[in-house]
Amino acid sequence: MDSDVENLEKIKIGILGCADVARKVSRAIKLSPNATVHAIGSRSAEKARRYAAENGFPEGVRVYGSYEEVVEDVEVEAVYVPLPTSMHEKWAVAAAERGKHVLLEKPAAMDAAEVGRVVEACERNGVQFMDGTMWMHHPRTARMRELMDDPELFGQLKSVHLVYTFDAGTEFLMNNIRVKPDLDGLGVLGDIGWYCIRSILWAANYELPKTVLAIGDPIKHDAGTLLACGASLQWGDGKVATFHCSFLGNLAMDSTAVGTKGTLRVHDFVIPFEETSAAFTFGSNLRYNDLVTGWASRPTEHVVKNEVPQEVYMVKEFATLVGKVKDGGKPEKKWADVCMVTQIVMDAVKESIDKGCEPVEVVSN
Amino acid sequence: MDSDVENLEKIKIGILGCADVARKVSRAIKLSPNATVHAIGSRSAEKARRYAAENGFPEGVRVYGSYEEVVEDVEVEAVYVPLPTSMHEKWAVAAAERGKHVLLEKPAAMDAAEVGRVVEACERNGVQFMDGTMWMHHPRTARMRELMDDPELFGQLKSVHLVYTFDAGTEFLMNNIRVKPDLDGLGVLGDIGWYCIRSILWAANYELPKTVLAIGDPIKHDAGTLLACGASLQWGDGKVATFHCSFLGNLAMDSTAVGTKGTLRVHDFVIPFEETSAAFTFGSNLRYNDLVTGWASRPTEHVVKNEVPQEVYMVKEFATLVGKVKDGGKPEKKWADVCMVTQIVMDAVKESIDKGCEPVEVVSN
Repeated sequence: MDSDVENLEKIKIGILGCADVARKVSRAIKLSPNATVHAIGSRSAEKARRYAAENGFPEGVRVYGSYEEVVEDVEVEAVYVPLPTSMHEKWAVAAAERGKHVLLEKPAAMDAAEVGRVVEACERNGVQFMDGTMWMHHPRTARMRELMDDPELFGQLKSVHLVYTFDAGTEFLMNNIRVKPDLDGLGVLGDIGWYCIRSILWAANYELPKTVLAIGDPIKHDAGTLLACGASLQWGDGKVATFHCSFLGNLAMDSTAVGTKGTLRVHDFVIPFEETSAAFTFGSNLRYNDLVTGWASRPTEHVVKNEVPQEVYMVKEFATLVGKVKDGGKPEKKWADVCMVTQIVMDAVKESIDKGCEPVEVVSN
Repeated sequence: MDSDVENLEKIKIGILGCADVARKVSRAIKLSPNATVHAIGSRSAEKARRYAAENGFPEGVRVYGSYEEVVEDVEVEAVYVPLPTSMHEKWAVAAAERGKHVLLEKPAAMDAAEVGRVVEACERNGVQFMDGTMWMHHPRTARMRELMDDPELFGQLKSVHLVYTFDAGTEFLMNNIRVKPDLDGLGVLGDIGWYCIRSILWAANYELPKTVLAIGDPIKHDAGTLLACGASLQWGDGKVATFHCSFLGNLAMDSTAVGTKGTLRVHDFVIPFEETSAAFTFGSNLRYNDLVTGWASRPTEHVVKNEVPQEVYMVKEFATLVGKVKDGGKPEKKWADVCMVTQIVMDAVKESIDKGCEPVEVVSN
C-alpha cells in the first residue's frame, strides 16, 4: 500500500454484536487502510471486552454493554451489523436514523419489505448501504464479469447451476442461531442460499426471473427452519437457473454458468480455497473432436491474484463510498439494488417452499 | 495386450446403419481384442460400402443394402444398433429373435415398455443385452464408485447435480435426426439427458427416485422435439438430484455429487477431455479454516489412466459377456436393469414435461 493510502482518513466503524463472522470482518477492518474499529457493543460489556481483546481490536476501542450505545456514539460513522437476521431491520434503521452508514451482514433481512425499510432509512438520511456479500468484491469476480460480458467469448447466458453445501454438524444443528426460528428464521436459505441466489442474479446481470419454483423436498429442523432446499428460476427468454443449498452435506461450492458461446466454472465461489489467489475455468466455443472421443479444445484455468483477502476489498470499498459521502457526494445506490433483488428472489423461494413447492411469480417491489 | 488376449476368438458383430456414432464404435470394435466387424447394413448398399471403406472396416466385411440381411446373416453373432430411436425396438427384437446378442445405442427406446419388450426378447432367446452408455466402462467410473462406496470417505449420498449442454448449431437444428419427432422423438432428453439420468442413478446405486419434476421452461423445436429441458428427482430419504440438458449452450458436462462426508466432481463425465486419461476431484470431510477465510483442506484431483478409449472397454466387456454365453454361461442381467431404470426415469421426466411440469410419481414396471 502506498503512502497516500496510509494517510487516508479512517472511517470509524462500530460493530453490533460479537458474532463469529465479526472476527473475520473486524480483521478485514484492521487490514483496510481506510477503516478502523471504533466501538463494539454486546448485550454484555464483559463479553464485548473479551471479544475485543481476543480479536486484537485497536487500543482505546470503545466497549459497550448494549447496541444502543454504539449507535448513539457520535464518533461512530458507520456500523457493521452481524446480528441475527431478525434484528437487522431494527438496528440498521436505528443506525441510519442517527446518520451512520450501514454495512449489513447477509441475509439482509427476513423479507424484502424489511430491506425496503432499511434502504429507505439509509436514503432518507443520506448514508451508504451495503450488504456483507464478500465475494462480490474479489478481483476474481470482476475478471469473470469481463469475460461473461464479452459477446464473442460468452455470448448470451442460457443457464446457471449452483450447489452450496456444508456439514454443519450436530452442535450447530442443536444450538447455532442459524437454525433458530426467532433469530435466523430463514435457516440454510438465508445463510448460504443467499449466496446462490446472489450468484445467479449476478450472472444474469440482476435481471429478476419471471418465476421461481422450490425443488426437492425441503428438509426442515424440528424447530421449523430450513436445513436443505433448492429452487429453479426461470426468465421469460428461456434462461434457467437451479440451486441447492444444505447444512447436511460435505462442503461443496460449485457454480457452472453456460452461455451460447462460453462456459464458466467456479469451485469456491463464496469462500476461495485460499486468501491470496482464486481460480475459475473458462472455455469458449468448445467442441468435441471429430469422432467425439475427446474435446477439440478444453476450458482453461484462470488464476487471479489478490493483494488482500476478499473481505478487505469489501470493507475498503464500503469505506471509500462512505468517504465520498463525507466529501459531499451521494451514496452509491448499486449495493442497495443488488441486495433488494436478492431478497425479492429469496422471498419467492420461501413462498414457493411454504406453498408446498408451487411456482411463484416474482414481482419487483 | 498379452498373447492370451490376442488369441481370443473374436465375436462377429453386424452394424445396423451408417450412423455418425458408429464410426466411433466401429473403431472401438477394431481396437477390441475380442470383437470384429463382420457385416454392415444400410438402406443403401452403396452407402454402406462407402462407409465401410471410409472407416477402415476389415477386408471381406459383408456389406448389405438392408438391416434385414444383417440380422439374417447366420455368421453374425451380435448386432450393434445405432439406428434412430424409433427403430430400436423393432431391430433389437428382430436380432434377439434370431439369436444375436444386442448392443443398443442410447437412448435405448422411446419408452420403458419398448425397453421391456427388447429385454424380454433377449432373455427369451438367451442373448446378452447392453446399451451404449460408454462412460460406464471407463476405469475412472470404477475408481469413483470405490470412493463413493466408502462410508468414511463419501458417506451417504445427499445430492447430485448435472449439467450437459452443447451448441448443436444451425445445421443440426435444421436436419439432424435428433430433432426429428419420427426418428429421435425424445430430442435432447433422449440424446444427452439420457447421460444425466444415468449418472444420477449411478450415483444413487440405481435406486429409483420417488418423484420427478420437470423444471425450467422446456424449450422445443418447431417440430415439437425438446431442445433444452431439465428435472429434479426426489427420493424418500431426502436425497435430491437436478439435471439440465440443452442443445443451445456452449459445451459443458459438469457433475457434482455430495455425500455426508465427501464431494465428487467431474467436468467431462460423458466424453473425457482426452482418450488416454480422465480426471475427477474428490474431497472428504472438507472444512473451512477457523476464520472462514479459506478452506482447511481442499478437494484433490485424481487422474485415472486408460489403456484404450472408453468405448473400447465397452465393446470388450460386451464381447466378453457374449463369449461367456457362447461357453454355456448365462447373460449378465445388470446391463438390462440399469438400462430399464434409466428409461423409467426418462419416461417420468417426459411425462412431467408433457403435463406442464407437474410432479410425476416414478413407478417401477
